[in-house]
Amino acid sequence: MDGFTHIDENGKANMVDVGDKSETKRYAKATGRIRVNEEVYSAVAKGSVAKGDVLGAARIAGIMAAKKTPELIPLCHTLLLSKVSVEFVFDDKAREIICTCEVKLTGRTGAEMEALTGVSVALLTVYDMCKAIDKRMEIHGVRLVEKDGGKSGHFVS
Amino acid sequence: MDGFTHIDENGKANMVDVGDKSETKRYAKATGRIRVNEEVYSAVAKGSVAKGDVLGAARIAGIMAAKKTPELIPLCHTLLLSKVSVEFVFDDKAREIICTCEVKLTGRTGAEMEALTGVSVALLTVYDMCKAIDKRMEIHGVRLVEKDGGKSGHFVS
Amino acid sequence: MDGFTHIDENGKANMVDVGDKSETKRYAKATGRIRVNEEVYSAVAKGSVAKGDVLGAARIAGIMAAKKTPELIPLCHTLLLSKVSVEFVFDDKAREIICTCEVKLTGRTGAEMEALTGVSVALLTVYDMCKAIDKRMEIHGVRLVEKDGGKSGHFVS
Amino acid sequence: MDGFTHIDENGKANMVDVGDKSETKRYAKATGRIRVNEEVYSAVAKGSVAKGDVLGAARIAGIMAAKKTPELIPLCHTLLLSKVSVEFVFDDKAREIICTCEVKLTGRTGAEMEALTGVSVALLTVYDMCKAIDKRMEIHGVRLVEKDGGKSGHFVS
Amino acid sequence: MDGFTHIDENGKANMVDVGDKSETKRYAKATGRIRVNEEVYSAVAKGSVAKGDVLGAARIAGIMAAKKTPELIPLCHTLLLSKVSVEFVFDDKAREIICTCEVKLTGRTGAEMEALTGVSVALLTVYDMCKAIDKRMEIHGVRLVEKDGGKSGHFVS
Amino acid sequence: MDGFTHIDENGKANMVDVGDKSETKRYAKATGRIRVNEEVYSAVAKGSVAKGDVLGAARIAGIMAAKKTPELIPLCHTLLLSKVSVEFVFDDKAREIICTCEVKLTGRTGAEMEALTGVSVALLTVYDMCKAIDKRMEIHGVRLVEKDGGKSGHFVS
Repeated sequence: MDGFTHIDENGKANMVDVGDKSETKRYAKATGRIRVNEEVYSAVAKGSVAKGDVLGAARIAGIMAAKKTPELIPLCHTLLLSKVSVEFVFDDKAREIICTCEVKLTGRTGAEMEALTGVSVALLTVYDMCKAIDKRMEIHGVRLVEKDGGKSGHFVS
Repeated sequence: MDGFTHIDENGKANMVDVGDKSETKRYAKATGRIRVNEEVYSAVAKGSVAKGDVLGAARIAGIMAAKKTPELIPLCHTLLLSKVSVEFVFDDKAREIICTCEVKLTGRTGAEMEALTGVSVALLTVYDMCKAIDKRMEIHGVRLVEKDGGKSGHFVS
Repeated sequence: MDGFTHIDENGKANMVDVGDKSETKRYAKATGRIRVNEEVYSAVAKGSVAKGDVLGAARIAGIMAAKKTPELIPLCHTLLLSKVSVEFVFDDKAREIICTCEVKLTGRTGAEMEALTGVSVALLTVYDMCKAIDKRMEIHGVRLVEKDGGKSGHFVS
Repeated sequence: MDGFTHIDENGKANMVDVGDKSETKRYAKATGRIRVNEEVYSAVAKGSVAKGDVLGAARIAGIMAAKKTPELIPLCHTLLLSKVSVEFVFDDKAREIICTCEVKLTGRTGAEMEALTGVSVALLTVYDMCKAIDKRMEIHGVRLVEKDGGKSGHFVS
Repeated sequence: MDGFTHIDENGKANMVDVGDKSETKRYAKATGRIRVNEEVYSAVAKGSVAKGDVLGAARIAGIMAAKKTPELIPLCHTLLLSKVSVEFVFDDKAREIICTCEVKLTGRTGAEMEALTGVSVALLTVYDMCKAIDKRMEIHGVRLVEKDGGKSGHFVS
Repeated sequence: MDGFTHIDENGKANMVDVGDKSETKRYAKATGRIRVNEEVYSAVAKGSVAKGDVLGAARIAGIMAAKKTPELIPLCHTLLLSKVSVEFVFDDKAREIICTCEVKLTGRTGAEMEALTGVSVALLTVYDMCKAIDKRMEIHGVRLVEKDGGKSGHFVS
């Protein structure tokens, strides 16, 4: 269907053929946020003992998930990521933990799904580690921030 | 640390011991949304040929991801899910696709992470299949809706 | 849809709820065959040095694949298999290697997909190891032989 | 052993060294069939509501399995597939659903195992979704149809 | 073969049948060590900034690997671990980092392989993060420390 | 932190960026040993019927684990291994089974973690298959033997 690159001429979901795209350096950066209650925010964002381990575990989980993207998203290509990083910053006013994931690779297709998957799983890991304290956390703002390489050029949201 | 069940007495991230919890029937329901542009919304929500396959692929991806949760979220226990379902409805006013994932199991710990992971990966799959058309989609509202079974009783958000 | 247990009331593919089925001992046995050329058949079936390793690798691959079934077949439940075995016999007349896979478990749903997946991957592994010699091998006769436990009773094909 | 590329000079199963093969565009197409009873055939092949979801789920499962091939077949190399597609056609006379899987990549070794694995898992998924109705389905005719790229040249069965 | 529980009556490697064993609480504890050079030891064991993250990442990797054991060790059963913990202590005299992994479950077979896999992957992760500084690290002393539950009774090494 | 390539400027564990390293042929060889009791040693090393299958299964497990390294070791890059081999020799005096794993690839980063993971999982598989006979086996001497390719040049331990 026109524009839907994963839908073939018969209206079926199939992997896009990237065999004729050129190998270029590609970059993607995604972000997302988790809104937590006061108790979780203080513990995680304000530096109590748990902080390192909650965000440390979430960072590792996000990086591993970015590498696992083609196993999770059915029509994603396996890619050789040359770098994945996951970082957290804090938004005191909104009482939110903000996660960003950056992915670099040299390959035939972009890595925005890897960056978005890294963010999502990192935030789910924060959720998991804090859910005994707060059952009303919410993940939002999961979106692409920047993308470069490939024929669609440079994108900044 | 007090309340943080995944942080042990030394402040380290470790799996909670659920060996003394009783095996009970447990249920969790999570939801999330993806905001898309007009073109994507019409194609996916309004019934063009692509609809079945975009949401069909996303449903399968969400179900498989729910089963994969302990591989993604470091401190989650492996569980024997007795049912996973993923559904989509449309919010015309907000131009959003709403995903819900329900999980049932008989076991020693709850399945909210499975439901949340199912929702997240289902929405990421929608994103992947529509990203050639819309680079500004955003996933939000990922949260627990309902939970039952286990000592913390019935929770409805 | 009536009879199609994986299709829900809205015609969507979803996992069957097995939460109300009882935990019983269950057994499944599947079989399949690969037809190979003279050269492969002699080497593998007739005892040359390669025999042990081709079938040994295929046996291990089949057992590991049976355990991986819920990752491969979207709507299969994760099960705790109590036994998986993979065996090979030879049909000289047909020049075929016959594989059988037996699976046992105590659980809420049957294991025929595990047995069928074990057979399929074991035979694909034989194919892989012999494909430099024979490009016309064919896998056929992959089917359920016997099944026991659960409400549908004893089945023998 | 002579010809058995996966058996080393000591008769042991080991991965073939493809490091000196050149990176070329490669293509493989495999096929297979599942014989089903009248009730399954009508529902799946003749267009009832279940059709889309049975074959849609099987297509996604086949594509994901093709990407997973090196995890399933012990001596297969990890490859960067540039395209995987899975299609179904119907053979009314034989009452069979025919699956084909095409795989493309640029790499140092061929992708016939990926195509064969895609076909096998897609057919097993059809089996899974229809097994409550028909316990005597049989998968057969799983074989390579065409292969191109690499030093062994173009193969058509 | 007598004593080799994974070798069947025909001398073939196959999974042991644990279907007739009773479900009991089981426990296993394994240990292992990595010998590192002065520079690595100071940085990791003596509290510089890297410490938390090297051992934090290794702890997460070990816990995730323990859950993945049946995917790695061909004849291991899938188990529902109720707890996994990974800890590190330091042996200043030997300049070694000592890792222990404890695993608990309620099930039909023991978890020593899970504990040993957790230790091995945790130590390999330490190795990975320090290998730019020390190429002569060595992992040793990987062994079972204690085991309980099941018919073989309590074992302490 | 200086020297710790996996620790970024903020002291956080993140994947190294290898995007600017050149694609070269790389090679790594690792080794490790398992010390076993008399009964296990005779059975496995001295040629009884079990020998082929214990070491055959361990070889397959080691090769598959080497391919799985980026799923196990959090900060390892996905690599396209062009060859993996696992071999065993026997040290009668020490009553030890010695495993070596060699890995080759063309890529942007070395493969020592793949070789070390291959050795570790192969030895754990030997352990698993012999643990009913000997509960005091010990894995030791897991280390890098040789490494070539990349900017750090040729390393021989």
